[in-house]
Amino acid sequence: MKFVIKQEILLESLYHTSRAISPRNLIPILTGIKFDLTEEGLYLSASDSDISIRCLIPTQEIVEIREYGSIVIGGKYIVEIIKKLPNTNITIEVMDGHKMIVSTDNTEFNLNGINSNEFPNLDLEGTKEPIILKTNLIKKIISQTFFATSRNESRPLLTGINFRIDGDLMEVIATDSYRLAKKSIHLDRVLNDSINIVIPGKNLLELDKIIGDDNENLELHIFENKILFKYKEILFLSRLLSGTYPATSSIIPNEFKVQVECSCNGLFEMIDRASLLTSDRDKNTIKLELGHQEMVISSNSPEIGKVEEKMFVDSQDEISISFSSKYMLDSIKSFETNNVTLFMNNDNSPIIIKSVEDDSLIQLVLPIKTY
Amino acid sequence: MKFVIKQEILLESLYHTSRAISPRNLIPILTGIKFDLTEEGLYLSASDSDISIRCLIPTQEIVEIREYGSIVIGGKYIVEIIKKLPNTNITIEVMDGHKMIVSTDNTEFNLNGINSNEFPNLDLEGTKEPIILKTNLIKKIISQTFFATSRNESRPLLTGINFRIDGDLMEVIATDSYRLAKKSIHLDRVLNDSINIVIPGKNLLELDKIIGDDNENLELHIFENKILFKYKEILFLSRLLSGTYPATSSIIPNEFKVQVECSCNGLFEMIDRASLLTSDRDKNTIKLELGHQEMVISSNSPEIGKVEEKMFVDSQDEISISFSSKYMLDSIKSFETNNVTLFMNNDNSPIIIKSVEDDSLIQLVLPIKTY
Repeated sequence: MKFVIKQEILLESLYHTSRAISPRNLIPILTGIKFDLTEEGLYLSASDSDISIRCLIPTQEIVEIREYGSIVIGGKYIVEIIKKLPNTNITIEVMDGHKMIVSTDNTEFNLNGINSNEFPNLDLEGTKEPIILKTNLIKKIISQTFFATSRNESRPLLTGINFRIDGDLMEVIATDSYRLAKKSIHLDRVLNDSINIVIPGKNLLELDKIIGDDNENLELHIFENKILFKYKEILFLSRLLSGTYPATSSIIPNEFKVQVECSCNGLFEMIDRASLLTSDRDKNTIKLELGHQEMVISSNSPEIGKVEEKMFVDSQDEISISFSSKYMLDSIKSFETNNVTLFMNNDNSPIIIKSVEDDSLIQLVLPIKTY
Repeated sequence: MKFVIKQEILLESLYHTSRAISPRNLIPILTGIKFDLTEEGLYLSASDSDISIRCLIPTQEIVEIREYGSIVIGGKYIVEIIKKLPNTNITIEVMDGHKMIVSTDNTEFNLNGINSNEFPNLDLEGTKEPIILKTNLIKKIISQTFFATSRNESRPLLTGINFRIDGDLMEVIATDSYRLAKKSIHLDRVLNDSINIVIPGKNLLELDKIIGDDNENLELHIFENKILFKYKEILFLSRLLSGTYPATSSIIPNEFKVQVECSCNGLFEMIDRASLLTSDRDKNTIKLELGHQEMVISSNSPEIGKVEEKMFVDSQDEISISFSSKYMLDSIKSFETNNVTLFMNNDNSPIIIKSVEDDSLIQLVLPIKTY
């Protein structure tokens, strides 16, 4: 293998590929990135047990190709090395089958590689009829749901995000059993088979870092136990979590006795300040009291003191309810709208947050019973 | 105590004062900030065993003063609370001698304070003839020397920065015994008594965060075991480290057999890349070879590979010497010049880094003997 390539072109693809590398992987070959120079261009591949990524740098983006070939090279080092080289032409050459020479005019790195035959075969074939979403939409879906997934590995399914498709309706749900985020999207075609899969949340975060916030196509190829994303020249394969995601439709009430609309920013700032006097120990509990066209948010810490925040609201409803300020802040922050509306029934029933400006998103926070 | 003040004015002084608070202080009163409203204005004071800070917000910067008085309030909370309030008028009032009410139109914090009588008396009297430095100069002194102090508490003196004044010459020295930074400044007057003090390095870092990068005066009032800095309306008191700082003048050679000038950035980038294949375990050792108008920087890691960097230099001298790339990078980075010159004798004698563009700074790095 021997070729010449611009530093910034190689670096961008290396960054993307390296997201599939976990430096603590026990299998040495899986801490590496496979370089494979073919007629189509340079394929960079990496894989851990969770994610596989393959990026193609097409032939026309390579300055000069002298000899096809392949090698696997330590992922951590090669990214750092290319990053620190100036943005100039870099010559990359394999010597003796297991050494990689990376050179510019004044610099020569001579790196120990591994024969690429040892690298596992990644099955990155797509399906015939992928689902196509716009990249800025999938980024929004991730940012509006991921935070509600569980960090607790004792219920692995809840660390994932649930994607359900029925006809042309896609529902995306995340919950840690104390709060829930649900985003509904209409696809541009009707699917014959319904789909119900759970994608590991952290893998979607990695995908989120690779795709741009633009209006490009992202293809979703769904299989029995894996999902393949295709974005430009990048293939991103994630395993799926196995098991049945809890049914959540019955959790969201249909009728509400109490309803109050208020400024998204105003509510966020009130709760943010009130949460200053709360602690993780007591679940950051704050109290909301509604009545006489006034909403009062308060919290009380015997050691530090107490705080009371007031806001005029256009509602005659009355309620007194307590909840986690942290969860409520996450939920409010997920709306990119001017106003949000809180829907409640009593101090024991879920709080629903919606916005008339964006009916695709529903957030739910369970109240905390205080005595 | 009762007064009204603009949020941003109070917040700025609180930020400065809170630098003297260590949240893990075992003495409750020392985790607090003392508010003291007097005829001159609002004094904010805080102190731990290392630093004491007092800021004055003069009367003319306070919107309204209704009643003088004082209280001590938990430092961590009051800074967070004022930070999260909108930039509007804030009313602050002491109730029952130990409660502080912080309120705006819609927000009311009711905080538990401590009677200010328990707060220690801070002796912040200055001397009659302080040394006066410009703030941008003291910031430069700190950034060019601090990095060379020791992080190892087993030799406490080396965690400090040594200030020596003789006549009108001030020498500032930091060393961890493997490298040394020395900055020389001419004061605008001749001192009668010579001075030799060691200021804790981390305290100077805190001072650095408080003073602006401007051309204001910073007064240094030096005492037997403490130093008081005065900047605008801020008093900053630091203890001094006791003991005799090692004599360092004999360490810096006067004559050199080898001398090579090169681009500061170019040298930095070469060493930075070569250091990629080194590890902390072997002290990040790299090798410099000079000869035939060429400088070669190289490193070699049996597991990962090797690297060689070349640079044309205008020098006929020859040497082969090894040193810590990390220490050399710190030293080079401290120069704000286009070029630096390395002065050497042999592979066992200190490397001196200077720049013809700035003769106030000398950096020294000890070589590492390799076999």
